[in-house]
Amino acid sequence: MSDSLPIPLSPPLTAAQQTALVNLVRRASRAEIMPLFRTVTRAEADTKSGPTDLVTEADRQAEAMLARGLQRMFPHALIVGEEAVAENPDLRDAVAEAELAFIIDPVDGTWNFVHGLPLFGVIIAVTRFGRPVLGLLHDPVSDDWIIADEASPARLAAALGSERAIRVSKGGDLADLQGYIHFYLMPQEQQERVAPLLATLARCFALRCSCHEYRLLAQGAVDFTLSGVLNPWDHAAGVLICQQAGGVARMLDGRDYNTAITKGFLLCASNQPTWHRLRDHFACLLED
Amino acid sequence: MSDSLPIPLSPPLTAAQQTALVNLVRRASRAEIMPLFRTVTRAEADTKSGPTDLVTEADRQAEAMLARGLQRMFPHALIVGEEAVAENPDLRDAVAEAELAFIIDPVDGTWNFVHGLPLFGVIIAVTRFGRPVLGLLHDPVSDDWIIADEASPARLAAALGSERAIRVSKGGDLADLQGYIHFYLMPQEQQERVAPLLATLARCFALRCSCHEYRLLAQGAVDFTLSGVLNPWDHAAGVLICQQAGGVARMLDGRDYNTAITKGFLLCASNQPTWHRLRDHFACLLED
Repeated sequence: MSDSLPIPLSPPLTAAQQTALVNLVRRASRAEIMPLFRTVTRAEADTKSGPTDLVTEADRQAEAMLARGLQRMFPHALIVGEEAVAENPDLRDAVAEAELAFIIDPVDGTWNFVHGLPLFGVIIAVTRFGRPVLGLLHDPVSDDWIIADEASPARLAAALGSERAIRVSKGGDLADLQGYIHFYLMPQEQQERVAPLLATLARCFALRCSCHEYRLLAQGAVDFTLSGVLNPWDHAAGVLICQQAGGVARMLDGRDYNTAITKGFLLCASNQPTWHRLRDHFACLLED
Repeated sequence: MSDSLPIPLSPPLTAAQQTALVNLVRRASRAEIMPLFRTVTRAEADTKSGPTDLVTEADRQAEAMLARGLQRMFPHALIVGEEAVAENPDLRDAVAEAELAFIIDPVDGTWNFVHGLPLFGVIIAVTRFGRPVLGLLHDPVSDDWIIADEASPARLAAALGSERAIRVSKGGDLADLQGYIHFYLMPQEQQERVAPLLATLARCFALRCSCHEYRLLAQGAVDFTLSGVLNPWDHAAGVLICQQAGGVARMLDGRDYNTAITKGFLLCASNQPTWHRLRDHFACLLED
């Protein structure tokens, strides 16, 4: 522990700017995402990296609307969307160099969206030189959201104006832990090493939607998340929200998370002892 | 193949009775379930068999409303709800002896419901001597439903009157198959045997909600489901809907499904070759 007093952090966005950001996301959900839910079919979705990596008109139109709105509100910020990066991978590197960047995941959980499962979300992360400073996890289905910035605790808010602080779980021993692991995004050889470790935990699975995974982590419904695919639009907001809900979010090898990191595993957990217990449990992933 | 013509099946419920059933379920969802979503918290839920087996006022009130309505519509039928069986386990045996029984799962996916995840459903199964003859899988969040009976194909219908036939996937080789396995409901020793088999498949996980799992199976989004906990309120409707969407639903040891079966594994898959491939893959579960 340091003797010096903590330096008070100034919020990256004013309260009015945060409200404007939330309202923009809510409008995009209403205008561009929900009208297509259960009307877009799998056949109309396009594939990206593989047959289960999908993109739809909802992704494209919502990202365009969000990018336009954010650029108007923050003319000097870098605005980067998942679909824009898919077209131009260099954009991702630009985030880590930008003093202020907004990263948009217009429809996180596109597979669910396309298959009629009401489990998808809009994620906005604000970063300074690749370090997350604000996160927003919006659920278009119920129109509520979790938001946090560096200077404030994570809170869950809903359309009717209710707002409450949220907190991660108490964690516990391995046999009691529930969490999300992106098992099927690992290479086959890693899957084979990790599979036997799954039976030791109380429960771990995946929702195919980082937005809802981080929402449940920050609310204490589950105890951890572990992922080896480090797309910043999936994780940057969740990392900050986990931390501001009292949790620990770090790379499995101990590094602080930053959008510039492209290799390794990101482990978020309820607290330090739980984080270390899980790090030891999954240490085989550090061997490569 | 037999030379005789198939005997035309008479539907267990008339079209008017099916409409009345659907409307009852939609009313219960609106009146007793949705108003409590994201207002009931984990702290207000009661536990049943263990810390993750939850029941809420939504379960109790919705089951009471559904049971009352069904008993009025079908005075001679046996009406059995998940929560009633929890109080009186003998009720389950009575289903297999009843000429006509209705099995209610008022909120399937209570863990999700309590943790604010919009992934739960109402399941109604109609059985004759324990054999499913009608199934209904309703999603209260989006107010749409899948329904099938012995005499008709499975179809997806929504509040606005749209209705379309649905069909299971084409299945495929093990490495291409996606499905749901109730891995964490298995005893530890079975989990350890099954864990290494998970890496061979394209993706398998669980939604903590049989209603949505069977909905996705019947619509061809995934290729199989496998479960060793045979509560009839979770499975009886899904078995019939899978079959009427073109799939195969049988016990892993080859038996036909019946609500009287309490031990073994239920495997539902897109077609016969896929079913047999999965049966061989999970044959270790037959060894006990």
